[in-house]
Amino acid sequence: MKFSEYRAFKELSKLAKMPPDLTKIDAIDAKRAEEMTVTSLSWKMLYATERVNSDIQKGLCELAKEAKVFEKMKLMQNMEVMNYVNNYESERRKVGHTAIRNPSAENLSNDVKNASKAYQTELKKLREFLAKTENFKNLIVIGIGGSYLGTKAIFNSLKSLAREDRNLYFASNIDPDKIGDILEHVDLKETLVAVISKSGGTLEIKAQEELMRKEFEKRNLNCKDHFVMVTGKGSPMDQPADFSEIFYMWDFIGGRYSVSSMVGALPICFMLGMNAWTDFLNGLHDMDLHALNETDPLKNLPLWGALLGIWNRNFLNCDTFAVIPYAQGMDQYSLHLQQLFMESNGKKVSQEDGSFIDWDTCPVIWGTVGTEGQHSYYQGIHQGTKVVPIEFIGYRDSQLDCDEMIEGTTNQEKLNANMFAQAFALAKGQRNPNHNKYFEGNRPSHCLVSERLDPYSLGNLLAYHEHYVAFQGWVWGVNSFDQEGVQLGKVLANGIIDLYRERHEKGVISKTKDNEAVLVFLKALDSIHEMRRNQKRSA
Amino acid sequence: MKFSEYRAFKELSKLAKMPPDLTKIDAIDAKRAEEMTVTSLSWKMLYATERVNSDIQKGLCELAKEAKVFEKMKLMQNMEVMNYVNNYESERRKVGHTAIRNPSAENLSNDVKNASKAYQTELKKLREFLAKTENFKNLIVIGIGGSYLGTKAIFNSLKSLAREDRNLYFASNIDPDKIGDILEHVDLKETLVAVISKSGGTLEIKAQEELMRKEFEKRNLNCKDHFVMVTGKGSPMDQPADFSEIFYMWDFIGGRYSVSSMVGALPICFMLGMNAWTDFLNGLHDMDLHALNETDPLKNLPLWGALLGIWNRNFLNCDTFAVIPYAQGMDQYSLHLQQLFMESNGKKVSQEDGSFIDWDTCPVIWGTVGTEGQHSYYQGIHQGTKVVPIEFIGYRDSQLDCDEMIEGTTNQEKLNANMFAQAFALAKGQRNPNHNKYFEGNRPSHCLVSERLDPYSLGNLLAYHEHYVAFQGWVWGVNSFDQEGVQLGKVLANGIIDLYRERHEKGVISKTKDNEAVLVFLKALDSIHEMRRNQKRSA
Repeated sequence: MKFSEYRAFKELSKLAKMPPDLTKIDAIDAKRAEEMTVTSLSWKMLYATERVNSDIQKGLCELAKEAKVFEKMKLMQNMEVMNYVNNYESERRKVGHTAIRNPSAENLSNDVKNASKAYQTELKKLREFLAKTENFKNLIVIGIGGSYLGTKAIFNSLKSLAREDRNLYFASNIDPDKIGDILEHVDLKETLVAVISKSGGTLEIKAQEELMRKEFEKRNLNCKDHFVMVTGKGSPMDQPADFSEIFYMWDFIGGRYSVSSMVGALPICFMLGMNAWTDFLNGLHDMDLHALNETDPLKNLPLWGALLGIWNRNFLNCDTFAVIPYAQGMDQYSLHLQQLFMESNGKKVSQEDGSFIDWDTCPVIWGTVGTEGQHSYYQGIHQGTKVVPIEFIGYRDSQLDCDEMIEGTTNQEKLNANMFAQAFALAKGQRNPNHNKYFEGNRPSHCLVSERLDPYSLGNLLAYHEHYVAFQGWVWGVNSFDQEGVQLGKVLANGIIDLYRERHEKGVISKTKDNEAVLVFLKALDSIHEMRRNQKRSA
Repeated sequence: MKFSEYRAFKELSKLAKMPPDLTKIDAIDAKRAEEMTVTSLSWKMLYATERVNSDIQKGLCELAKEAKVFEKMKLMQNMEVMNYVNNYESERRKVGHTAIRNPSAENLSNDVKNASKAYQTELKKLREFLAKTENFKNLIVIGIGGSYLGTKAIFNSLKSLAREDRNLYFASNIDPDKIGDILEHVDLKETLVAVISKSGGTLEIKAQEELMRKEFEKRNLNCKDHFVMVTGKGSPMDQPADFSEIFYMWDFIGGRYSVSSMVGALPICFMLGMNAWTDFLNGLHDMDLHALNETDPLKNLPLWGALLGIWNRNFLNCDTFAVIPYAQGMDQYSLHLQQLFMESNGKKVSQEDGSFIDWDTCPVIWGTVGTEGQHSYYQGIHQGTKVVPIEFIGYRDSQLDCDEMIEGTTNQEKLNANMFAQAFALAKGQRNPNHNKYFEGNRPSHCLVSERLDPYSLGNLLAYHEHYVAFQGWVWGVNSFDQEGVQLGKVLANGIIDLYRERHEKGVISKTKDNEAVLVFLKALDSIHEMRRNQKRSA
């Protein structure tokens, strides 16, 4: 059965013709606010400001049931093969990011037990490695995508807990300016470089590593003492001769789900120590269990989040979804979610039979921290022509305890007041005879709130988003665990790199029917050079 | 006349039913690539990978003519009142961001001449101020939205030119963690604080300034020696007793158009010196003149960009627009564009008669630097269910001259190869019997390329985007220069701040029909505190 064939789909399509009007007086009263709350571990979701009512809640629960999402969550957490598309060649792999953070793996398959054990072995290696590298002051992470975005988001969120004598840098981009900038700041003598690539074959990573090794060699430093690797066992970069230590990851963990593997563990433990990591893992694992065991969709936080997202995406037809944390430390978090959501569910092939589907899947994910966004794009959110559903994220307490009472309230209170105010303003709108001051309202959002941005609550939150994505993928019927869509660009890029190489070697590029338009683009780049030289000459 | 009533609108609607198919063999040949190029100053736009043909080009040119965009550009640059909405109370102000960077103001109104002169006076004050403050090592900018995003984007783009003995920090957010983080890094004795607020009444700015002054006082430092202000003359913060210098801005420059005013000049000149600023201003002014004087829409870079955007938005119905620079320094640029675009044109009121319009205006603007995005959200861009038009931005040369030949090409070449490859991959797609490896193509983008990311080319680019926005606003018929949509959230936030204050003062908040749902939200925040305390106790 497919998404658009579910009984609940049809029911919800009817309900979507007349969603609740939140702009009516008393539409959002205390009773609604209390009822529309989900509590899970260290988080509460307040969703009275979403455009749902009890009929819609019921329909969404029914949808989850028809899509068999609990059965699938169980299969995934038991490491059955969940990364597949039927009828066509596909990766056909197990999915094990929950397995590694399951310390006991009781009642689960041998695969889970083995994964859990293998991860514990890596953590033990890490503990020993950190003891040996106590004197290093800097860590440069060479990684991109899943080997970068999650770690950076987690690190920024928790950096108030980081050792003050250490610094973390990310050389994520192939752009040579990125490493140039880092080199201006660090003394390589006291610097470790962590190269992170599951496949061991990523163009950007190999190029950056080579560039970086040349810098060490220029300074007569022995690269091996400074370089450490995180990769799949047996990958082309699994070369013990080149690295002081190699940490392993496995093909059952996709890049965007790899934060809790050694990809995140190495940099975060280097900066924060292993106790914070344990708290973070506990936060993830507790949410894994909640996602697995709470069978009421209205009480299962990631599932309910996923269903609200589907309501907004497929029934209220919103093409984007903004995640806006009112917490400065989370300034990179939405960028991690961009990958997690869009690489997982930016798909249009049915997992069940490989056909092209005809409903919308993942929206564009975006957003920056509040209150900054209020002074930027909120105009468009309030009075633009398209509705943007929002997930606000906020905390009762500030992280750094650097706050003051000013005019009778703390800044943290002002921050949270702004967050809540936005949720109500978007939902309720404002009637005004002056069209410039008219807000149509009925713009849906919810607030996810917790006590404090710390390793445990962050672990809960990250697993919430990972399971949010998995649940949505199963409802839409797509495979959330591959990424075939990134291949074509890579192939064409290698073709153009070959043209550049040919030009270096032979001085010219041979024109073919296939590359003639590309050559025009390359020539345009060069001609600007001429153009500006001429401008300068004539100036 | 309104957008949807233009003859060209109807013509383009017809053409949109059968846009050119870029996936056909030879659809993008050398001839098309050469013809579909716009050259302006230090930039070339390569748009053979957009879904346009000569009929569509003609229709878009006609649209620009019907919307009288050149007449309006002329009025704007002559500082007529262009910030208005008819039939309702509105700001009714002149628009003068181009006037201040027009050094000669020949043949223009007295308003332009006065604005130009006033700005020169401020620059002279700045030169003297910088001489006096030579010994300061740090500058903390307290600003938000338009007093922050543009400056940060410009600074990051050019920071390779910055003085190595100086550091720039931004305290943009009301979140107290932001300032806490900065205080860990700087010695306030050698630190200047620039408070930037046009109105002098922004909640975040006042709170941050007060928090910061307390930190100086704790260290027995005289605040006045360290604090400098940028504000409107006569604003509540125009207090010469409190600041070592006050630089002025004017109500004819909106926050999001204020980078070239003292808002950007003070921090950028502190870090880069005034010569770089002069080059940047020249870049802006040259593009202002190009936007004004090049009356062929196909050769007017910002107008042509704007028209392509309208084609994708209103005729191909794309709800978002990604701007993706393949240049690490531009990692903040899209965040500035989010404000510039969405605060300017996220509107639905007709400027002509104040009626609500029934066509789409500004899309959601998003994007991060390449190649990072390729390893994140590109899956969704290539194979997701919705088309995302893209503006790629790239440079022939790297900025920092830290590059190496690896496997026969430089990293800068690899970077540009990737950018061009993406444009072609998105346009051409790939037929494949395996649906997982099928790319439907026909996903539009263009590449903006220049020689080098330097002050002049960046000035060109910023003015390109400013005029892109203005041209689009005129075609859509909205007022791109106000931001009424941010008011409601402010009002509601102040109401909730009052509740917090009441609780501090009286211990309780009096419940009313109006605030009962908000109280439930506030209580939820507190109850998590209890919940986690209980969890910890039972653990």
